[in-house]
Amino acid sequence: MLIGRVIGQLVATRKHPSHEALKLLLVQPLHLDGSDRGDAIVAVDSADAGIGDRVLLTTEGFCAMSAVGRWPSNPIDAAILGLVDEIQLIPGVTP
Amino acid sequence: MLIGRVIGQLVATRKHPSHEALKLLLVQPLHLDGSDRGDAIVAVDSADAGIGDRVLLTTEGFCAMSAVGRWPSNPIDAAILGLVDEIQLIPGVTP
Amino acid sequence: MLIGRVIGQLVATRKHPSHEALKLLLVQPLHLDGSDRGDAIVAVDSADAGIGDRVLLTTEGFCAMSAVGRWPSNPIDAAILGLVDEIQLIPGVTP
Amino acid sequence: MLIGRVIGQLVATRKHPSHEALKLLLVQPLHLDGSDRGDAIVAVDSADAGIGDRVLLTTEGFCAMSAVGRWPSNPIDAAILGLVDEIQLIPGVTP
Amino acid sequence: MLIGRVIGQLVATRKHPSHEALKLLLVQPLHLDGSDRGDAIVAVDSADAGIGDRVLLTTEGFCAMSAVGRWPSNPIDAAILGLVDEIQLIPGVTP
Repeated sequence: MLIGRVIGQLVATRKHPSHEALKLLLVQPLHLDGSDRGDAIVAVDSADAGIGDRVLLTTEGFCAMSAVGRWPSNPIDAAILGLVDEIQLIPGVTP
Repeated sequence: MLIGRVIGQLVATRKHPSHEALKLLLVQPLHLDGSDRGDAIVAVDSADAGIGDRVLLTTEGFCAMSAVGRWPSNPIDAAILGLVDEIQLIPGVTP
Repeated sequence: MLIGRVIGQLVATRKHPSHEALKLLLVQPLHLDGSDRGDAIVAVDSADAGIGDRVLLTTEGFCAMSAVGRWPSNPIDAAILGLVDEIQLIPGVTP
Repeated sequence: MLIGRVIGQLVATRKHPSHEALKLLLVQPLHLDGSDRGDAIVAVDSADAGIGDRVLLTTEGFCAMSAVGRWPSNPIDAAILGLVDEIQLIPGVTP
Repeated sequence: MLIGRVIGQLVATRKHPSHEALKLLLVQPLHLDGSDRGDAIVAVDSADAGIGDRVLLTTEGFCAMSAVGRWPSNPIDAAILGLVDEIQLIPGVTP
């Protein structure tokens, strides 16, 4: 999984029926030092995350579908799995 | 999922039997500012998308197969899941 | 899916039993303008493709296994799904 | 699979229910010479690994879910599968 | 699938129980001209491959698990599927 930050949301009126009840968030993956890691992706929220939260993110479909509990009929490929409270690194690892 | 734009379509006469009823669209993945993000891919439409539409895109097979509702007998690895109406970003995020 | 061109084939005498009846082709993924897109990969043919053909290609295992119709006992991760007759782009898209 | 080193752990209070009993470790993938290979990822431990250990790592969800034995209801996409004791290379390969 | 060369093996004493009977090999993916293609990975052998052999390689978990015949309880994400005897390219393709 990756660490990311919720930077926005996406509004889609016409969509797959299974997406009706889902919240689509824009998440920016992060390096350990908090800088951007590649580009933002669209993820489904399964942890009641909000804008600005630092989150645990999966970008794999099989995993994401399991997270929202409606596997395998729910076509998503990225999901927020939790909120990151703290990152503990061994001494000497930056940062 | 990614955000993309439909830039064309693909005509294939000889193909997998399950593809007969599917529409194959060329989709250019986009960055949040609308610029190109890598190269175009071929995706199956599951949201009645048309040329020029901005769409929600998956490039994972397990997710794409679920979208077209004939899982697992339908070999596709990318699908359009919806039309993107609006992208709402938190202040300070570019653009 | 990607667009590619069949550039050769691969001969393997000792192999997984399920591969006995499969044709292993070398496929070069292509950009929309026909130039090379990354490196060639080895794909199983499910569309009676031949050397030189422009093809519709998947490089995902779940999708590829579905294509050859012996899912999930057939270990392959790339397959040719069809022959590309024509690519239609909206005006202004290059090329 | 990849070789990696455990460099830290991640604390997440609010998370997917299935993650309650799992240990989330930060793992830095490594090249054969021990240098960093891309960025660290968050992986679930299935081999009783500890901080500083050199480990066998999968970054694929289907594989990771199988490792923790609660497939498919457990949404993870990376897991530690074992501890690496020794890497034996043929003469001439560096290092 | 990719073409690779077996360059070594990996010794892991503490590991997932399902890995007890598996041989873990280090495989260097190759370009068509035989040069290195990215970094070496750890793959399970399903074709009785040995050090130095040129092999057909999958780096996808679903495919790899199918290859070793104990799907889905065996967590691996890369496997050797066969030995490559010959690569036949159409004239004009290098090399």
